[in-house]
Amino acid sequence: MNRQGLDTNVICQIGIIVRDIERTAKAYADIFGMDTPKIIITDTEEITHIKFRGAPTQARAKLAFFQMGSLSLELIEPVGDPSTWKEFLDEHGEGVHHIAFRIKGMDEVLESLNEKGISTIQRGDYTGGRYAYVDSTSALGVILELLENY
Amino acid sequence: MNRQGLDTNVICQIGIIVRDIERTAKAYADIFGMDTPKIIITDTEEITHIKFRGAPTQARAKLAFFQMGSLSLELIEPVGDPSTWKEFLDEHGEGVHHIAFRIKGMDEVLESLNEKGISTIQRGDYTGGRYAYVDSTSALGVILELLENY
Repeated sequence: MNRQGLDTNVICQIGIIVRDIERTAKAYADIFGMDTPKIIITDTEEITHIKFRGAPTQARAKLAFFQMGSLSLELIEPVGDPSTWKEFLDEHGEGVHHIAFRIKGMDEVLESLNEKGISTIQRGDYTGGRYAYVDSTSALGVILELLENY
Repeated sequence: MNRQGLDTNVICQIGIIVRDIERTAKAYADIFGMDTPKIIITDTEEITHIKFRGAPTQARAKLAFFQMGSLSLELIEPVGDPSTWKEFLDEHGEGVHHIAFRIKGMDEVLESLNEKGISTIQRGDYTGGRYAYVDSTSALGVILELLENY
């Protein structure tokens, strides 16, 4: 399969790294007149098979999701390290970490991006799918996340 | 009018600060299989009435827009200073500068946000409308842009 890029340009999610997810989630709820969402924590490495720069890690994250128009805004508070979440917080402070796209064929897309010089930072599983973050910051000014539901 | 917040939670734009807009626009076009958009430059202060932290400024920006799903991705290369664009580049390097929302009643919305401790960073006019950036980074982890077409 000769894949070129992602085969989509529909942004489905924006991910924002924060220090205190309870506080920030309340601020979004207040300013946008929405309910405060339930805050969840990612599963352990045994379940998510998380790998950061190719190696397993015990890092996790607290997450909260707001539906805002056609996309979801994801708040992310890093828990433990190493992870792309903790690395971003250490290097940049709070801010937008990634924009996400729903793709098909994770390995082929990652290989296609790798051929363009964009390597994989972190990948793992979530209930019903898998994700990968790629190192597109120098090319695009932002990390891309690829999401593939089973 | 007793406005509470923005009266919308529909994200219409993501703005990314870059150092070299020609290079980054080509990278987006390549990775997402899109045409490279025309790069424009904001008008002069005499036309835009740009104010940064309340004072007129000669700062401008080069802009390029990609339509990605229901929202536009805006690349921004700061030209001159002072501006929120140049300040972000100096403090954070390349990255996502803002998420934007279409609102009605700019002054009322800015006053409502000010009452919540979120002040105005920069505002100005564009052909057919006006914009404002607000200092929501400590509350929300990202700057908000408000866009109001006439």
